[in-house]
Amino acid sequence: MVQHAPALNRLVGELKKLPGIGERTALRLAFHLLKSPRGLESLAEALLQVRDQVRPCSVCFALAEQDPCPLCAGGRDSAVICVVETSQDLLALERSNAFSGSYHVLQGAISPLRGVNPSDLRIDELLERVGRGGVEEVVIATNFSVEGETTALYLARQLKPLGVRVTRLAHGIPLGSDIEYVDPATVQWALKGRSEL
Amino acid sequence: MVQHAPALNRLVGELKKLPGIGERTALRLAFHLLKSPRGLESLAEALLQVRDQVRPCSVCFALAEQDPCPLCAGGRDSAVICVVETSQDLLALERSNAFSGSYHVLQGAISPLRGVNPSDLRIDELLERVGRGGVEEVVIATNFSVEGETTALYLARQLKPLGVRVTRLAHGIPLGSDIEYVDPATVQWALKGRSEL
Repeated sequence: MVQHAPALNRLVGELKKLPGIGERTALRLAFHLLKSPRGLESLAEALLQVRDQVRPCSVCFALAEQDPCPLCAGGRDSAVICVVETSQDLLALERSNAFSGSYHVLQGAISPLRGVNPSDLRIDELLERVGRGGVEEVVIATNFSVEGETTALYLARQLKPLGVRVTRLAHGIPLGSDIEYVDPATVQWALKGRSEL
Repeated sequence: MVQHAPALNRLVGELKKLPGIGERTALRLAFHLLKSPRGLESLAEALLQVRDQVRPCSVCFALAEQDPCPLCAGGRDSAVICVVETSQDLLALERSNAFSGSYHVLQGAISPLRGVNPSDLRIDELLERVGRGGVEEVVIATNFSVEGETTALYLARQLKPLGVRVTRLAHGIPLGSDIEYVDPATVQWALKGRSEL
C-alpha cells in the first residue's frame, strides 16, 4: 500500500537524505518506526529539540546548548587553541583525553572546488581571538586531506605574523596497525618524526 | 561538546533505537542533520505526519492513509485473498505485478516462543472475511520460517472447513541463482514442483 501512502513516501524520502541510507534501508527504518507511534513521536521531538537548543558557541563555534559552551566557560587553558574542522573532530580529540586547551571549530575546510573560501569559515573569528592576546600556541588539527592541508597552510600564514606558535598534529603509524600494511607516505612521516627510546 | 549537549545525546539515543544503527552511525546522522535546521524540521514533520495519517485499513489491515485502503476500495479481485505477515511483504508481492486479488495483513506470525498467539494476529478478521462468502481462494504468503510455516498450517486448518481453496506460495530455485549454491532443501522443493516444458 506504500505506493499509495504519501505520508510514508515522504518519510522514506526524508530518511533517504541521510548519509549512507538508501531506498531499502529507508523503507526498513520507516516500517520499524511505524510499529510504534510513541517511537515516531520521540524521534520527532528529539529532532525539534536539537533544532531549538543546539547552537554554535559564540567563542569557539562548537555545537553546544549553552553559550559560551561548557568547554569555553570552564577551566580550559585559553593559551592553547586547537583548531578543528568540525565538532565531530573536536569530539575525537576530547576522547583522547590528551588536550586541556580550548578549541576553535572552523565549520569546514577551504575547498575552492566546492566553493568554500576562507571567508566562509570561522577564520576571522580565530584571528580575532588570537589577536586579543593571551594565546601562546595554535594547534592545527584540520584533516590530512587536500582541503585540510590547504586550510592548515593558510592558517599558518595568517597566524604566524601575530607572534603565536603554530603547530600541527603529528603523522605516524596508527596504534595497533601492522607496519606491513601502512601506506608508504605514512611510513615516511613516521620515520621523519622518530623519537629516542 | 556533545557530551555536554543533552538534546544531541537524546537525538543520538533515538537514532540508535533504529535497526542496524549503532552509536557511531547515530552520531554521524545527528551531525549531518545538525547542518540544516530545515532538514531536522522536515524529518520531524514527516515522522509526525506518518503518526497522524498512516493507519491499518479496516478491511485488510495493510498500512494506508485511506480507509478502506486504495487496494480494498478499488477494483481488486475480492474472490482471491493473499495472506501476508506484514505490509512490507504485501509490497514485495505488489512489486511482482503477478497478483490481482486482495490482501490480508496478519501483522505478524504465530510464535509461541515470543508469546505471539493466534489471537494477537488478524486471524479472526480473516475468518470473518472468508465467512461472509464470495471468497474462492486464500493464498497463504507467510514467510518460510518456523513461525510462518506454523501460521500457514494453522490458517489452513481454520480455513478449509469454510469451503475455500487454500494455497501456498511455491518453493523453488530463485531466479538468476546458481543451482550449485542453492541449499538442498530448496532443490528438493524445486524438483517436487517441476513442470512440463
